[in-house]
Amino acid sequence: MFVTVFLLLVALCSQMGNGDGGEGAQRPGHVSVIIVGGTGDLAKKYLWQGFFELYVNRVSGGNTFSFYGGGLSPAEKATPVLFEILKAVSCSKDVSPERCALLKEQFLRLSQYRQLKTQEDYQDLAKHIKKQLQEEGMTEAGRLFYLSVPAFTYADIAEKINSSCRSANGAWLKVVLEKPFGHDFRSAQVLASQLGSSLKDEEMYRIDHYLGKQVVSNILPFRIKNRKFLDPIWNKHHIERVEIVLKETLDVKGRIPFYDQYGVIRDVMQNHMTEVMMMLTIKPPMNVSSREEVLQNKLQIFSSLLPLGKNQAVIGQYRAYKTEVQQELNKTKDHVSLTPTFAAVLAHIDEARYEGVPILLISGKMLDERVGYARVLFKSDIFCLQNHNSVHCKPKQIVFYFGHGSLKDPAILVSKNLFKPAVTENEWKEVTEHPDVSVLGLPISDYYVQTPIEQREAYAELISHIFAGRKNNFISTENLLASWALWTPLLSSLASSFPRIYPGGADNGGLLDILLKGKDISYNSRAVIISPDQMGGSSTNGFQVMQGKFRSADMVSAWAEELVERLAADMQEAAEAAVREEGVFHLALSGGSTPLALFHRLSQHHFSFPWRRTHVWMVDERCVPLTELESNFRSLHDHLLQHVRIPYYNIHPMPVQLNQRLCVEEDGGALMYERELGKSVNDTSFHFVMLGVGYDGHTASLFPGGKANELNESLVVLTESPVKPHQRMSLTFGAINRARRVALLVMGKGKHELITQLSRVKDNPDKWPITAVKPVKGRLVWYIDYDALIG
Amino acid sequence: MFVTVFLLLVALCSQMGNGDGGEGAQRPGHVSVIIVGGTGDLAKKYLWQGFFELYVNRVSGGNTFSFYGGGLSPAEKATPVLFEILKAVSCSKDVSPERCALLKEQFLRLSQYRQLKTQEDYQDLAKHIKKQLQEEGMTEAGRLFYLSVPAFTYADIAEKINSSCRSANGAWLKVVLEKPFGHDFRSAQVLASQLGSSLKDEEMYRIDHYLGKQVVSNILPFRIKNRKFLDPIWNKHHIERVEIVLKETLDVKGRIPFYDQYGVIRDVMQNHMTEVMMMLTIKPPMNVSSREEVLQNKLQIFSSLLPLGKNQAVIGQYRAYKTEVQQELNKTKDHVSLTPTFAAVLAHIDEARYEGVPILLISGKMLDERVGYARVLFKSDIFCLQNHNSVHCKPKQIVFYFGHGSLKDPAILVSKNLFKPAVTENEWKEVTEHPDVSVLGLPISDYYVQTPIEQREAYAELISHIFAGRKNNFISTENLLASWALWTPLLSSLASSFPRIYPGGADNGGLLDILLKGKDISYNSRAVIISPDQMGGSSTNGFQVMQGKFRSADMVSAWAEELVERLAADMQEAAEAAVREEGVFHLALSGGSTPLALFHRLSQHHFSFPWRRTHVWMVDERCVPLTELESNFRSLHDHLLQHVRIPYYNIHPMPVQLNQRLCVEEDGGALMYERELGKSVNDTSFHFVMLGVGYDGHTASLFPGGKANELNESLVVLTESPVKPHQRMSLTFGAINRARRVALLVMGKGKHELITQLSRVKDNPDKWPITAVKPVKGRLVWYIDYDALIG
Repeated sequence: MFVTVFLLLVALCSQMGNGDGGEGAQRPGHVSVIIVGGTGDLAKKYLWQGFFELYVNRVSGGNTFSFYGGGLSPAEKATPVLFEILKAVSCSKDVSPERCALLKEQFLRLSQYRQLKTQEDYQDLAKHIKKQLQEEGMTEAGRLFYLSVPAFTYADIAEKINSSCRSANGAWLKVVLEKPFGHDFRSAQVLASQLGSSLKDEEMYRIDHYLGKQVVSNILPFRIKNRKFLDPIWNKHHIERVEIVLKETLDVKGRIPFYDQYGVIRDVMQNHMTEVMMMLTIKPPMNVSSREEVLQNKLQIFSSLLPLGKNQAVIGQYRAYKTEVQQELNKTKDHVSLTPTFAAVLAHIDEARYEGVPILLISGKMLDERVGYARVLFKSDIFCLQNHNSVHCKPKQIVFYFGHGSLKDPAILVSKNLFKPAVTENEWKEVTEHPDVSVLGLPISDYYVQTPIEQREAYAELISHIFAGRKNNFISTENLLASWALWTPLLSSLASSFPRIYPGGADNGGLLDILLKGKDISYNSRAVIISPDQMGGSSTNGFQVMQGKFRSADMVSAWAEELVERLAADMQEAAEAAVREEGVFHLALSGGSTPLALFHRLSQHHFSFPWRRTHVWMVDERCVPLTELESNFRSLHDHLLQHVRIPYYNIHPMPVQLNQRLCVEEDGGALMYERELGKSVNDTSFHFVMLGVGYDGHTASLFPGGKANELNESLVVLTESPVKPHQRMSLTFGAINRARRVALLVMGKGKHELITQLSRVKDNPDKWPITAVKPVKGRLVWYIDYDALIG
Repeated sequence: MFVTVFLLLVALCSQMGNGDGGEGAQRPGHVSVIIVGGTGDLAKKYLWQGFFELYVNRVSGGNTFSFYGGGLSPAEKATPVLFEILKAVSCSKDVSPERCALLKEQFLRLSQYRQLKTQEDYQDLAKHIKKQLQEEGMTEAGRLFYLSVPAFTYADIAEKINSSCRSANGAWLKVVLEKPFGHDFRSAQVLASQLGSSLKDEEMYRIDHYLGKQVVSNILPFRIKNRKFLDPIWNKHHIERVEIVLKETLDVKGRIPFYDQYGVIRDVMQNHMTEVMMMLTIKPPMNVSSREEVLQNKLQIFSSLLPLGKNQAVIGQYRAYKTEVQQELNKTKDHVSLTPTFAAVLAHIDEARYEGVPILLISGKMLDERVGYARVLFKSDIFCLQNHNSVHCKPKQIVFYFGHGSLKDPAILVSKNLFKPAVTENEWKEVTEHPDVSVLGLPISDYYVQTPIEQREAYAELISHIFAGRKNNFISTENLLASWALWTPLLSSLASSFPRIYPGGADNGGLLDILLKGKDISYNSRAVIISPDQMGGSSTNGFQVMQGKFRSADMVSAWAEELVERLAADMQEAAEAAVREEGVFHLALSGGSTPLALFHRLSQHHFSFPWRRTHVWMVDERCVPLTELESNFRSLHDHLLQHVRIPYYNIHPMPVQLNQRLCVEEDGGALMYERELGKSVNDTSFHFVMLGVGYDGHTASLFPGGKANELNESLVVLTESPVKPHQRMSLTFGAINRARRVALLVMGKGKHELITQLSRVKDNPDKWPITAVKPVKGRLVWYIDYDALIG
């Protein structure tokens, strides 16, 4: 059944092979292509067409081919189905009908169906290939398995391929996988490790078909080619915001069993939209085809992305979804699915270049139109004195238009007042004649527009990449896990959130409009349409900030967020008063995780905090180098100091490391800190000391039973902690109680028992060090959240 | 001639007096008002009307009045002129014609003209007042002199008032002055000190009539009243930019002798527009009528404003101006005036709250329309999924509309999608019915609009403030000098700049449109229209960056700006290479003023500089505390480190202060730095050392004849400088010459002679320390600007 195709232009083609830049470099000889799931929907719609195009393009390129559609059905049943599919493939316009007919005939002759169910089936396939190769007297180039089957079967099939279908003579093996690659970080990791036991990393091709879309795969080349224009503006000073939008009009009827397990975030955000975000934000590689460099640059962005939490996303669900779920999953009328069919997510990259630039990812089913694009909107940098309608006064933006919508075709659009972009590749052209449409707020005549000369299907594109071994266009394990590491915490935090119900289509009106509030987002309109029989819980904080007494000192209590807001406001008030009266504010801060929310609040909301006049001191420190993650200073540094304009000299880390060693008594670090304090702080009396309290009742690094808990003259001492790292440096109660104001912050359900106990015990510094906090002349205020107070 | 007015409602009026919050609290009795220049244009147009209104409002308020118009002319000539003016005053609508006639008649009877030329004239005036008071048996409340005369006469008149016209019985004295208050910082200071020798600060009222405009004087009350809406958004995260615009259609024909001395910046920017900027940006005072608090808050903003230099302004001149100057100043055809009639200035406030928010001040004569406004444009914080024309999807802005333009009336406008503002005062009202106009891009129906119930002239308003002693509405000496301190350097740097010539009116087209480039601005269009007989010099930099050899090392030369760009780029390249290869970049930087431009460039343009992986070391340090302005570290800190995200631990100041003393040999600071270096820097070989060179050929702190110039083992030493501060700490040539790359930056004409000498001398480290810089394995590059190279 093989056809040995004439080896024309071998020299030229081997050059082409080199030009590909692929890593699985071309090797002449025979190639076996096996589509597992070869009669499925995806295969029918895209894959066979893609492989036919591959065949057409490569038939004169030094390789011969055979194609196998595999599946669970017996051959006699599936073969006619397969051939119906194969007959439907089509040639591109530039192929003559005669040649097309010939090519199709060849392609059909090269193809067959095989049942691939058991280990034996795979062994038989291998035997078959071997036999054919021998009969035809051909060398083998490689074997390409395309797994177009549900993801749960991947590990099993990979194992079968590994044990039965590897070529003995060193021909390559490529196994192509389609998303979903797991359901969350853990499952993705498990799947990756299962696959890893059967296949080498370089043998795996994880497809994200967005990377095959011409516009998406052209983002990076466009950025590189237009570097001289983009370099000065591709940063926070010029970019207003980035939007990646994927709107669909369809519902998911018929796909509920799959979809209800995934939802919009797993379906398109974790993969397609994340990849688009990467293409837009990574540092352009020196060598665009260097897989390693691109990967490293992506990982750099992943590591700089601020964590995505509940406040960075809103979710929705179209109204009919509930009924569809009940029907397709055979659920009762009171079954409620929380799976989102719409989501908007706000990402931020914590790098100097992109700091503060909002990156919006938005996608949903049953919206008003079908369109996909990524838009980089620039800040207005022009002031027009009179003719505000001139082109140069209009918004400046670059739009990567994936397709559909008003423009219909894929294109890259650049506002004319921005720059005239170079056309990136031979396969692209500039277009100057357009229908009279408007794209994202501007008439198309306000843009420079470029489009692919010939539109190609993403799958056909990717299949040619697979064949050429251009791994750049596929998702590596590291990339995949980095993406899941980003999305998994968000998915967990949304797991029990109620999506906003939307009617679908144009009726959505402004219901799904998004409001950005700094690093947080919310729906713009408060009116939530809830179908009467569905969920009700918009979790409002009914309680206000409450004031009272605790252990005969003042107490402020509220839900965590309000409590932190209040503490930050009180701190700023104290700071302003101190600066007004003395020109300086001395603040001592504790380590641990409790104050992080406070640090965040201070750095993100308190713009007029007088940092230039504030000195920051440490309440206590662990005896580790300041650069270690365990260091209290490091945490303070990363979460607060790096984000505010505080002068270098106003920062006072504890000298736990002296003479290249940690907290050695004779190095006199504690005394040194005490002297520094004596020199800078008037009467060694801090304006504000912020303390936490541990489960064992310790505060600062003053632990139960510690010697330092007795009052003495020292202000700073070395102490021992019962938990690692044991050695600590700490302010003493002597120093703490000299402060003008002491705030004790206690948050979380975990502290409820402690708070209950503390409300009862008498002062007993040896057992409950916290009870020794009693400012001599200053004021003590407890800040306790409702979780800790009420439990 | 006096009329004793019935003292109705005395009790009520004394209450009103208290309610005023003025400092020169009301005192019952007789008030003498003297307008010096009482028959001049300003007096004719505004002042008499203002004093008539004061009279009408106060006539029943416990005071009696007499009014004097003073001038250089003899009384017989000027009296009829004055009475022509007085007859033209008018009453407000709510006064009946009968009462108006009565009031005008009274006002005329209370008024007289007096010649005020010599010291005797002022003495006579004082005698006259005294006599009248005695005759009528009245107590005196105070004397108000309004100097409506050219500014050069102020000091003289103030001296005459001081020596001859003070009341003996403790009645108040108020002297009102109109701008210009000087021509630059120095002249303003001289004038202030001259006035200060005759008048107390609280006796002087410097008028800025913009502060009397109802909208301007309502900015601060509006901000305070709407605090809860504004507090969260009045910061860099929400404000896109601020525009203060004052466009005029008139030319300055007839006023050239004055105007040509001043120009648009002195005429409206240094005063009116600066005050508006203050009202928009100062921290709202706790007590809006606390003069001291408002002043302190203003001074705070003044001290935070980034310096205004050539790159923060563009200037223009309308085409006909040249001829007008030639005619009015009797100049020849080749006379060229550089006085700007148009300017756009970009200010930035270097405070956490406003960091990076552009504040644009724009004003000019002969523009397309007459309009004045201040606009605060907010960033778009909304993403509209489908109906982009909904009100909530539109731009968000607050407009303080001073008057004229499309709206005609003064008003405060707030986009409806922002918030519904409270109406600030009793004297303001919300307006809901409008003509169908558009204001700054939005139809008026998209705004909440409030306007004054009754429009009042600025002068009438200010005269009532003067009378009530509300000093807040006037310019204090400190305020004035702070403003001149801001503007004077810009005026000097523009002194020899050629303004862009514009045709005037609608013909200006886009010629005066402004482009913002970070902290710099320029005209948007490059095409400069130059009238053929006028100036030609658009100073283009014809030269490119040049490469060559200097003292047998590599040399890069260019104009200063390009040179710094090149050095910054080279430094980033070195940094990236080091981080790629070793994960870290060790950079040693010199002090002095030469590198400041480099620091600026690095912090403002190099967003992808790998600061997180960069360690910054000092090449040398002066033995002063690090916080002193003289400290090299302090300069590095303020100009670079505070502006980039470099971790605290990566910063390595030299330990010049140990044990509370400076650079004592036995404290071992140099050795300590050497050890730190040994610990952190691989092979103690810096990746990059940036050096300067002094006029005497020194580099780092290694001076001619210094002992340390001999090669020895040390890396860090204490040295002696011939200039103060004498003691220094410095890297040695040993340390410098171990570096992988050394850049020597030399800039400015002042260095030309040195460069010439250096190009000839042989290596002689004792005489020319710089000649000892010879990296053993590394590369040395000289960066010399054309000024230093060519002279």
